[in-house]
Amino acid sequence: MREPHKRVAVLSPIAWRTPPRQYGAWETVASNVAEGLVARGWDVTLFASRDSVTRAHLHAVVDKGYEEDSAVDPKVAEYLHISEAFERAAEFDLIHSHYDFMALTYTRLIRTPVLTTIHGFSSAKIMPIYQKYRDGYFVSVSDSDRAAGLNYLATVYNGIDLSLYPLQDSRGEDLIFLGRIHPDKGVHLAIEVARLSGLRLIIAGIVQDEAYFREQIKPHLDDQNILYIGPVDVTGKNKLFARARALLHLNTIPERFGLVLVEANAAGVPVIAMDLGSCREVIKDGKTGFLVGNVAEAGRVLGRVSEIDRRVCRNRVRQHFSIDTMVEGYERVYSTIFDLETKRRS
Amino acid sequence: MREPHKRVAVLSPIAWRTPPRQYGAWETVASNVAEGLVARGWDVTLFASRDSVTRAHLHAVVDKGYEEDSAVDPKVAEYLHISEAFERAAEFDLIHSHYDFMALTYTRLIRTPVLTTIHGFSSAKIMPIYQKYRDGYFVSVSDSDRAAGLNYLATVYNGIDLSLYPLQDSRGEDLIFLGRIHPDKGVHLAIEVARLSGLRLIIAGIVQDEAYFREQIKPHLDDQNILYIGPVDVTGKNKLFARARALLHLNTIPERFGLVLVEANAAGVPVIAMDLGSCREVIKDGKTGFLVGNVAEAGRVLGRVSEIDRRVCRNRVRQHFSIDTMVEGYERVYSTIFDLETKRRS
Repeated sequence: MREPHKRVAVLSPIAWRTPPRQYGAWETVASNVAEGLVARGWDVTLFASRDSVTRAHLHAVVDKGYEEDSAVDPKVAEYLHISEAFERAAEFDLIHSHYDFMALTYTRLIRTPVLTTIHGFSSAKIMPIYQKYRDGYFVSVSDSDRAAGLNYLATVYNGIDLSLYPLQDSRGEDLIFLGRIHPDKGVHLAIEVARLSGLRLIIAGIVQDEAYFREQIKPHLDDQNILYIGPVDVTGKNKLFARARALLHLNTIPERFGLVLVEANAAGVPVIAMDLGSCREVIKDGKTGFLVGNVAEAGRVLGRVSEIDRRVCRNRVRQHFSIDTMVEGYERVYSTIFDLETKRRS
Repeated sequence: MREPHKRVAVLSPIAWRTPPRQYGAWETVASNVAEGLVARGWDVTLFASRDSVTRAHLHAVVDKGYEEDSAVDPKVAEYLHISEAFERAAEFDLIHSHYDFMALTYTRLIRTPVLTTIHGFSSAKIMPIYQKYRDGYFVSVSDSDRAAGLNYLATVYNGIDLSLYPLQDSRGEDLIFLGRIHPDKGVHLAIEVARLSGLRLIIAGIVQDEAYFREQIKPHLDDQNILYIGPVDVTGKNKLFARARALLHLNTIPERFGLVLVEANAAGVPVIAMDLGSCREVIKDGKTGFLVGNVAEAGRVLGRVSEIDRRVCRNRVRQHFSIDTMVEGYERVYSTIFDLETKRRS
């Protein structure tokens, strides 16, 4: 399957550095793909912000992620960054885009095949572009997060670097929430579960919806039982995992993948997740956590957290959600594309 | 100069219909270029919203201007619309883009030459894209609105359809303001002049800066001497011109071109304009209006408005700012490009 003589361009988003310092799921996965490919001998060029950290060749036209640099107009930065990769298409055998719908609009102007990993459909309004380019090559990050009619070659689950999230020695006492502070992520439901159970809840993540934070989260913070500690980096996540009884992920809309579920499981932390979208692909109910339908159920399964074997959680991540597993998945997809392109041209 | 066997794509913006129903200067000019080229025998394809009105071949991928259709995401619409023109590049001998910096990022992926008319630099943040693509083909709409280092082939002044703005029989009594309600356009200065002079001021145009309107315009409206009548179409503009003593255009930043100055002059209405940017290219001081440096000067020259010969105003527009003059200008630029491309390829 390996074809290390092939040159691959990995097009990462530029909202944040690749890999991100804190939040930035898409940049995290693009980084893991690039580093994983390099480790397996591929010739990889990473298109990302200039402050990115990589063992691949880095090609950058913007200095910093636009979320980290107010001097930059995101629209300008995106047009510059995306087009740059396509202008250099002839240098590559494949462009692997982790960018959103925008990159698709350049794909018909070049000869190099483009694979797009769809990390999520942010809005129904972007679907006309996916529909126009539906004959392209697509990968979904979960079986559940698929749009009808697109030419999917496979689902490739996101993979994490397990060495970043060591298995914690023992179970902690607190409930934790980790993710964007946004109604989609059900932070308010996690608070309800904490109140019902009388357990402490520690909330970490960037505030993406200010009004939601102000109205539905902040009034509950008491420095005692419901705490908000802001965004956290890898070290901060591990500190949280060390004190975690369980991670609460009571998403209110279908989850696309849920990287944080995997990170928690890697550290041996059971995950209580709403049974929506990809959660049942990531969490094995009763083995690595629990899938629930509402707050009351979430409260009930808290009593069963001790049934979860921490090593089973980690092993499942190693098997299904490691960088190696992900990169092997992409290598199979790349091979398929190279075969299809060879046939198409012969 | 005419090469009607050549196929030209005119890429219009899609904020509004082409031509716009009311406001939409860039779409107005793109429309005038397309219609003017058709009238002179060129094979023209206009890329614009589907509800556009044209004698050219219309190619559309979005139904309506995104400012007129809340169902559409502007970013999505722009990516779809712009890329569509470039995907069809092989069908054309030239793409004439009236789009902003975004279209430039596709130009290196096609073989068809692209001419960009820069209708204005909306922000310093877009300059990195112009600098990257500075070797492209550019036209400025006034000598004053140029950025250093770009490969300008010419200044081609915007042209209007004079038949839309007939010469008014006689001078009206009121002062008029026509344009976006935005601090750049100095609506507040026009109000000052009206108050100083005791003349009535009628303000027309879209509100682009809500806070400015609320704080600096609305408090002065009295239904008597200072009136705001909202945006106006061509009929509305002519009604305004009929009652106009002079048009006040006391812009606070350099004007890029100032289509409304030309429309007023076409109707025989003298223009009192701030001497900033292109205004001195469009208005001939003492002949078709007056160039001033501040409100006091604007007040003083009001007494000299009777010196302005209405037919001189219109004749100057016919000579320098008509569709025919503009299209002849563009035909010269197109010829230059075809010659350069022929040399480049030989």
